[in-house]
Amino acid sequence: MTASREIHLVKRPDGMPRESDFVVREVALPELAEGQALVQNLFLSIDPATRPRLTRGQDLNAVLGGFALGRVVRSRASSLKEGDAVRAAYGYRERFVADAKHLTKVDADPELPLSVYMHVMGGAGFVAYGGLVEIGKMKSGEQVFVSTAAGSVGSIASQVAKLKGCAVIGSTGSDDKVAWLKSLGLDAVINYKKEPIRDALERATPKGIDVYFDNVGGEHLEAALRRMNSLGRIAVCGMISTYNDQQVGVRNLSAIIYGRVNIRGFVAPDFMHLYGQFSKEMTGWLKNGQIKYQETLFDGIENAPRALIALLNGENTGKMMVKLAG
Amino acid sequence: MTASREIHLVKRPDGMPRESDFVVREVALPELAEGQALVQNLFLSIDPATRPRLTRGQDLNAVLGGFALGRVVRSRASSLKEGDAVRAAYGYRERFVADAKHLTKVDADPELPLSVYMHVMGGAGFVAYGGLVEIGKMKSGEQVFVSTAAGSVGSIASQVAKLKGCAVIGSTGSDDKVAWLKSLGLDAVINYKKEPIRDALERATPKGIDVYFDNVGGEHLEAALRRMNSLGRIAVCGMISTYNDQQVGVRNLSAIIYGRVNIRGFVAPDFMHLYGQFSKEMTGWLKNGQIKYQETLFDGIENAPRALIALLNGENTGKMMVKLAG
Repeated sequence: MTASREIHLVKRPDGMPRESDFVVREVALPELAEGQALVQNLFLSIDPATRPRLTRGQDLNAVLGGFALGRVVRSRASSLKEGDAVRAAYGYRERFVADAKHLTKVDADPELPLSVYMHVMGGAGFVAYGGLVEIGKMKSGEQVFVSTAAGSVGSIASQVAKLKGCAVIGSTGSDDKVAWLKSLGLDAVINYKKEPIRDALERATPKGIDVYFDNVGGEHLEAALRRMNSLGRIAVCGMISTYNDQQVGVRNLSAIIYGRVNIRGFVAPDFMHLYGQFSKEMTGWLKNGQIKYQETLFDGIENAPRALIALLNGENTGKMMVKLAG
Repeated sequence: MTASREIHLVKRPDGMPRESDFVVREVALPELAEGQALVQNLFLSIDPATRPRLTRGQDLNAVLGGFALGRVVRSRASSLKEGDAVRAAYGYRERFVADAKHLTKVDADPELPLSVYMHVMGGAGFVAYGGLVEIGKMKSGEQVFVSTAAGSVGSIASQVAKLKGCAVIGSTGSDDKVAWLKSLGLDAVINYKKEPIRDALERATPKGIDVYFDNVGGEHLEAALRRMNSLGRIAVCGMISTYNDQQVGVRNLSAIIYGRVNIRGFVAPDFMHLYGQFSKEMTGWLKNGQIKYQETLFDGIENAPRALIALLNGENTGKMMVKLAG
């Protein structure tokens, strides 16, 4: 019988989550039935979207939901064999047994490190790509503003926008991240912790903003609304600023009327038809070194709550993951 | 030499405008040059959109901008003759001289009262129609919420949505208006002054909201965001609640992400291609009595500031206009 450890939510956080809101539980895994596989997770994806679910949606005393990338250890399913890479939404676990139909086989390019299938080649990359192309209707030559531009989604969005011929303005929260983003070729980078975003964005966008890829909401969104060009598009991927705190709210939404601005929330299933195009373009960019990425790795399932809190505090650069022993 | 009186803004209001922010000035009109016409205004359109321009956009000590409907008194332009009905954006004036190219001849149906070309058959009707059809992408059978449903735009939007096969929920601010809206066949009507809009809207929308035609912003928009169905559309025509006051802001915008909601500001020029279809359908509905309307009329140019303040206080039912002596 195989054992696994997993993270459970035991208390709903009020504001920023604390480590004591979570526990590590050890469980015994069932034997494999026909059509099932045993998966060893290698990378847990740590995502901002987990935060609102802690308040509503995530059950208490149950495994914390989330995505992971792993390898098949044993299989009784004809579609999977030992060593296959798979992605699944089975939560914060070391190992698990699942029906093969709930596992997505990852056709990993052998020239790329496996972990990129958890971010640039995974959900983060696809959301960045589709959010700009399909939701933001970005066109070459436009002015694109990306918030949390050094984050896992933001850093890809920023680079995709550059590769597609746009001027890109990014915001981030530390000088190290500013330096990294400048090295990626962004046209302007704002450290919003050093200066009010409103003033900094006004200076950084002399040509206004045609597309705002929003990961933040709140003050960033207010500042962007002041700078949107006529018929501008705001693709809302996340609103991390609103997940933990009582909010003041966005006070200048009426700017969208005369600006005829379109604000649209989205999730990846809205543009699955772009997946093939995304996969092909992004693989090429990665192999050519045209897309750079960074990873922040915490080690061991027991550190997953710390990783989530660090993410919500903006302590990561690039994709936050927890690495599990293979 | 012909005289005219006109309204000037002399002080930018802080919050709700006061009559003392405006003055009536008498001016002498120039003689007609070739290609010009003298117009006698009959109806001034009093519009919420004037409020934000008082803060920014409207010059001090200059005629207050706005639309009016009048008749040609004398013409030296081949395209216009005495008695022609014309619409123009020449501001709050009794009479004026203008180049014919700045006047829009109104092809008024003789079976309809002329004043409807200032609202149901004018900008308000067209904005209501296009806002639902083009921006809201309203489909038969959907749930449509209209705020300030008894206003000039809202009352037409509510009835058009009914005529197009939707269930319509309206909000308004008095029992008289509730009664009128019920008489128009709305499925549910909320008096937001009697109960928090959030609670009332939750009860009135058991099937959620597919299209929100927003004239209000603020708390109405927050309440609607809580009730939007997946892939819902919010067509933002106005945000009257945000024009006068320091605002708390909209605090639950992140609801648009998982709901994949589209919030879009618009103005009528965005859908001019619908004008012919609108004009034909609306004329038919009016002649058949399928579209009802109300007018609130103030008399005389000197009462135009009072009319504007009354409008911003929600004292009108249906279209607010100032009637000028013919």
